[in-house]
This record gives sequence, C-alpha cells and structure tokens, in this order.
Amino acid sequence: MAKAGETSRQDKQITAADLGGLPLALADITAAAAIIRGAVAVTDCNPSRTLSEICGCNIWLKFENHQFTSSFKERGALNRLQALSSEQRARGVIAMSAGNHAQGVAYHARRLGIPATIVMPAGTPMVKVENTRRHDAEVIISGQTLEESGAFARQRGNAQGLTLIHPYDDPLIMAGNGTVALEMLEVAPGLDTLVVPIGGGGLISGVAVAARSLKPELRIIGVQAQLYPSMYNAINDEQLPMRGDTLAEGIAVKEPGRITTEIIRKLVDEIALVTEDEIERAVATLIAIEKTVVEGAGAAGLAAILAAPDRFRGRNVGLVLSGGNIDTRLIASVLTRELAREGRLTQLAIDIPDRPGRLAAVASLLAEAGANIIEVSHQRTFSDLPAKATLLQLVIETRDKAHLEEVMVRLGAAGFKARL
Amino acid sequence: MAKAGETSRQDKQITAADLGGLPLALADITAAAAIIRGAVAVTDCNPSRTLSEICGCNIWLKFENHQFTSSFKERGALNRLQALSSEQRARGVIAMSAGNHAQGVAYHARRLGIPATIVMPAGTPMVKVENTRRHDAEVIISGQTLEESGAFARQRGNAQGLTLIHPYDDPLIMAGNGTVALEMLEVAPGLDTLVVPIGGGGLISGVAVAARSLKPELRIIGVQAQLYPSMYNAINDEQLPMRGDTLAEGIAVKEPGRITTEIIRKLVDEIALVTEDEIERAVATLIAIEKTVVEGAGAAGLAAILAAPDRFRGRNVGLVLSGGNIDTRLIASVLTRELAREGRLTQLAIDIPDRPGRLAAVASLLAEAGANIIEVSHQRTFSDLPAKATLLQLVIETRDKAHLEEVMVRLGAAGFKARL
Repeated sequence: MAKAGETSRQDKQITAADLGGLPLALADITAAAAIIRGAVAVTDCNPSRTLSEICGCNIWLKFENHQFTSSFKERGALNRLQALSSEQRARGVIAMSAGNHAQGVAYHARRLGIPATIVMPAGTPMVKVENTRRHDAEVIISGQTLEESGAFARQRGNAQGLTLIHPYDDPLIMAGNGTVALEMLEVAPGLDTLVVPIGGGGLISGVAVAARSLKPELRIIGVQAQLYPSMYNAINDEQLPMRGDTLAEGIAVKEPGRITTEIIRKLVDEIALVTEDEIERAVATLIAIEKTVVEGAGAAGLAAILAAPDRFRGRNVGLVLSGGNIDTRLIASVLTRELAREGRLTQLAIDIPDRPGRLAAVASLLAEAGANIIEVSHQRTFSDLPAKATLLQLVIETRDKAHLEEVMVRLGAAGFKARL
Repeated sequence: MAKAGETSRQDKQITAADLGGLPLALADITAAAAIIRGAVAVTDCNPSRTLSEICGCNIWLKFENHQFTSSFKERGALNRLQALSSEQRARGVIAMSAGNHAQGVAYHARRLGIPATIVMPAGTPMVKVENTRRHDAEVIISGQTLEESGAFARQRGNAQGLTLIHPYDDPLIMAGNGTVALEMLEVAPGLDTLVVPIGGGGLISGVAVAARSLKPELRIIGVQAQLYPSMYNAINDEQLPMRGDTLAEGIAVKEPGRITTEIIRKLVDEIALVTEDEIERAVATLIAIEKTVVEGAGAAGLAAILAAPDRFRGRNVGLVLSGGNIDTRLIASVLTRELAREGRLTQLAIDIPDRPGRLAAVASLLAEAGANIIEVSHQRTFSDLPAKATLLQLVIETRDKAHLEEVMVRLGAAGFKARL
C-alpha cells in the first residue's frame, strides 16, 4: 500500500520533442485564454505568508474556488462549448457529472443559449441537483454509479444528436483548464513547482503543457486521494485498490482519461497520494488561516505539502485550490474533528460510583482546571461496570494538548479513572 | 425593544459645512492611504452576483477579512504608529484589546521595531493570546472586563511612558480606517450605499468622512448587534439594554467613542440593529455562497440586508466584511444551526412502546423516506412517559423543509407520535 506523500518519480527533464508530440500545445491554451476572457474570472493568485511559514516553502494560492460556479471546470467547459458549430449549438449538449463539471457546463451553456442536459447518478445530493437546475439545465437522474450515468449520457446523446461534453478527456477541455497556469505564471513568474489535484487528469494536463512550455524546468506534482489512486496506478503500473468514501469526491475518479494519461506520463514529475486525515487537515487549515472555503479535492495540494514538507523546502510552490463546493455539514464535521486532533475538543469516559455528588465533583474539578464542558451523558444500562458504578461520558473543550494533559493529571490525582 | 432592522433616521442631506466642522477631513484619509500603502493590503472589492440576486440589490463585498491579521484594524493602527515621534517609538506603545486591534497593533509595531504591550482581559481565548504573542508583543492579562483592562492599560502607559493606542476614539485611527472607503469607491464608483458595522465607531467614522466628502449623496448605514446597541442608544437618546453573549463580539462595545459619536451623528443616515439569528445566517451564507470566512461582526452588514431587503431594493450597496477572526468551533456550530433552520438537520423525539422491533421499524421507515439518521438516543429514566414506553431521540438529515414534512407525515401515518 502506498504511503501518504509517496510519489512516483522526480524531476523529469523536458525537451521540445516531448512537448511537440502531444495532442495539446501551448498555442491551444493561449487561444483558450482569449476565448474565455471576460466570461470566466481571472481569479486571484496570492502568496500566503502564514502557510509559507508553516510549510517551509513559499506558497502561492490560486483561488479557483472563487469562480462563479466555484470551480475551475468553467474554463474547459466554456472553451469546449465555444468550439461547437452553430448546428451543434442548436441541437444542444449533454454531460455526465455529479458535481463541478455539471455546474460549469450548465452555467455557460445557458449564457450561450445552448440547451444542456446533465445526467447525474442516483443519490446525488439534492443541493447539487438544485444548483445545476438553477442554470436551466435539464437534469436526468440515471445510473447508480458515475460509470452507469456516463453510459446513459453517451446513449442519450447519440439518440438525440446532442454533443457529449466530456469532463476531462478532450483536448479542448484541457486547453481551457490550462489557462489556470498561464494566469499563475503571469502573476508569479518565479514559481518553480505547481501542485495540482488529479481526478480524470483534465486540469493537470492543461496546466502541465502550459507551464512546461513556458518554463521547462518547472516541477509539476499531481495529487490524488489515497482511496482513489487511479492515475497513480496507470502511470506506475500498480494495482492499488480504489474504494471508500473520500472527502475529495471531486477527484474520486476510477477511470483516468486516455489522453490525460499520455500527457501526465510525459510531463508530470510525481503523483503524491494523500490520506483522508491529511485532506481534512488541509481543508481546516485553509478555513482557519486563509479564511477560504475549499472542497476536499481543492485542498489536496496543501495536504500533500503538509504531509511531506521536506520535499518542498525552500521552493516557490503554486497550489491550485481547484474548487469550493463542499457541503456545510461536512465543513462543520471537518472543523470539529480537527479540534479533536489538536486536543481542543475531547471525549472522555470516566467511571464514577453511582452516588450523589460525584458528577458535581467532576464538574467542579474541570471548572477549576479551566476546561469547558460541552456535552454530558450518563451511561448505566450498557456499560461493563458493576451495577453500582456509572459511566460518565463528557465532551470537554481545552486550550490545547498540554492543557488537556494537565486536566487528565488532575482527574487522576482526584481518584477518577478517566479514559480518552 | 428595538426590532431587527429598526433604524434611527434616513437620507441625511450633507453640506460642506457639515464636513468642515469635523475633527477629521478627507485630506487626513488620503494622507493615511499614502502612509499605509505597501504595508497594508489593498483588499479585493468584488460584486457578488448570487448575493445580489438573493437580496434584490447590487452587492459589492470589501474583503477586509483578507488582511494579514484578518481585519481592517491594521489600517488605523499603522497610521497611528507612523505618527509617533522617534522618542515615542523608542519608549513603546500599549493597547487594550481582546481581539483584532491587539493583532493589528502588535503586528505593525513589530514591523516598525516599536515595543508593544497588549492588555487583555482574563478569559481571552488562548488562541487570541497566542496570535498576539506571535507578533512579539508583551501580553498582560489584567481585568475581568474590557473596561478594567482599559483602565489598567492607561495606568501602565502613564507609569512607563508608553503611548496608548486607542482602538477607535482617535482621529488618526479613524483616518486609517477610512481608507477602506477610498478603495471601495475607486473600484466601484457607482456605489450609493455603504453598510458598515459599528462597535466603538472607528471604522464607520473614517468611512463616512471619506465617502460623503467624495460623494455627499451616498447613504451610510451603520449596524450594531441588538445585544449591544451602544451607539444606537447614544445617537437616539435611548436606553436599550446591553447584555449577553453575541457572535459579533468584535462590535460588542459598551462605551462608544466621543469623537466617533459626533461624526456618526452628523454623517450616518441610519443605525440598524441585528439579532443573533440574523448574524448567524449571514456568517453561514457567506461561507456557503462566497466561500469566505467572516466573523460575526464582519457579517453584520449582510445580516442587516437579509433582515430588511426592501430598504436596499435596487441600490448599489457596498458591504465591509470587516474581519475574519472567528473560532472554528463557532463556525461548526453556526453551520449546524443553519442546517437546522433550513430543515436539513432536525432533532426528533418519538414516543415508542418499549418492546423489540420498534426502533427497527422507525429506522426502516426513515430509510425508505430518504432521511439519514445522524444520532440516536434512547431515553427511559427521565421521560414523563409511562414505565412501559420509551422516548427515542433522533437527529436526522433531510433534503429541505418539504422533505422533512413528508417524513413527519409518514411517521404519523405509521402510528408514531413524533415531535420536532
């Protein structure tokens, strides 16, 4: 099993020949930049002093979560839509996506007066369905998985003469997405490393072609969730398993693109894998320090740096915060879990004799120690304690790990057996 | 008691004479802009299409939460520090604050090589103490309230020859803060209304002088938390009570400034009061839609618009998001409570007979209805039900209010008495 921060290769030397033989060239990306100008935001690309201090390298953040539909996907989608013939426009387009691609296609299709059909798998959160419908797209719920939805979309597209807008394996999509790198290097020409999340590979392919054409020595590092290492497997001829629920559902793609795989093989130096814990910490860190809301996939780049800062030490690193579409319930849960990791929120179980005054004794001891009681529950029926004992479960708030330790010592000194 | 959205006056006509007699003039603010240039960020001021749609007016957001110490306070602090004589610089400064002013003073004092002492009241969250110490300020914890800390700071300042940097009642502080308005009107000269939070009044005073000097017909609307209507009381000769815990602790100031009150009386059209509920919704809305993290005080302006959109209908409104220093535990709690308001997270109490299979029946009914069970607890001992009945408490997730209603109807039809 690959460890977090594990990577596949390093410091690839790129020649003009490498770039020449690809299905995508710098000229396609500069053309895309002209095509999408004015209709897609040129998002901020700012240095972060505090993240740079924490990580030991110079970090620049590209805020693609500030796009109107909150992700970079608009870039590729609009470039693709603008290439349609007038007959194709009149017939309309179809796309399959449960997330950001759906909103990017629907929004720009409406702007251009192109009818759009979006196929989403069953179980897509209602909020994403609503966000897509709000852009007047016809939403069809079909298929249990993204693969089944994709098959349905192709079929329906063929039957009705709709053009399929693929989420990543299309040079026009990649060219649009590559404009992210043009904007980053214009603002921060000193960047020597770009860290980019990989799902199907449509973002990093465009970014890699743009950046390595302009600056061949620039390092490109892709990041995948350890639960879905599809491109990592393809590039490294590995068979790591793909399964489970990831916070970075935006890059949980089982089938990497054919064209994107070819470009990544030639131009991307490493693919790092990040754990769920690392992704959660990165999301929480961006909220706490940068005051910005980024979805799991969008935080994958920071997760890779936080997991292995030595690999980036002293470098000038551009991070693409690729999107910001994360459910507020998930944000709340990520922040609460991060507080637990920091020792600021802790669940304690304390065995106490079942007689009057013991709860009061625990409560006043905690108050004196400066700990704040957030939740209390008494457990009697289901504990494995003798009938006359009670299990007291508490959630307490402390300042940090040292404070928590002090509280635990005080509880022990007072004769309470407390477990974390 | 004043209702949310209640205001004190409207559409003040401003003449040159009004502006002439004030302790602060446009020239002081343009001078401050030159002084702080390069050391304080010119933050983004962007239109928000989605918030504009929701509110029925054209909204521009000024992102002061993106300052290095995450609030506008740096502007006034730096302008004040730069006015010190070399002797005053050598002796050092002292300030009292539990929050953003502390960090603004400490950060810029260190940049300028000025020793800084910050007095904070007992009980200041450790994270704020640490953030201030990180800028090498000496932090003294003294006083149970801000007023007591303030008295201590004055005393200590006098005894040690330290210059007191007042958080708001100082024309140099106001002039620095007023640069916010210069930047907003440069980017968005069509603004006709500015909505600004009021604590001591140091931000809105500078903003009002700058904006109404450049554009006398522009409306300035101040916002206070309904729990701390200190400036509202001063301006309207009212005695509304001040008490309680507000999410907008950054504007929970009991004593408005003397100079700020004078300026506000002359230049501010209205003071709106917003409830805690409205502030929470505004914080949650900015996270969900703008992907930006704003503290309670910083969201007060949006809260005022969401509470009374008719007052702003069709106008071009600039909102100052004054700061972003909010504890992550509070963010989690605000987001969870907003989900409850939207009908997406609901606590249910269901009386069920205490025999096997009833919990299973409820659980499968909820699963069929598409509701997700988040938490379960059985209550037996403390309910007011007959001995053979049990109280089942559940937290369930539903898509929206309509879905929740459907779930309740199904429970009722199956014979379960469920209460919200």
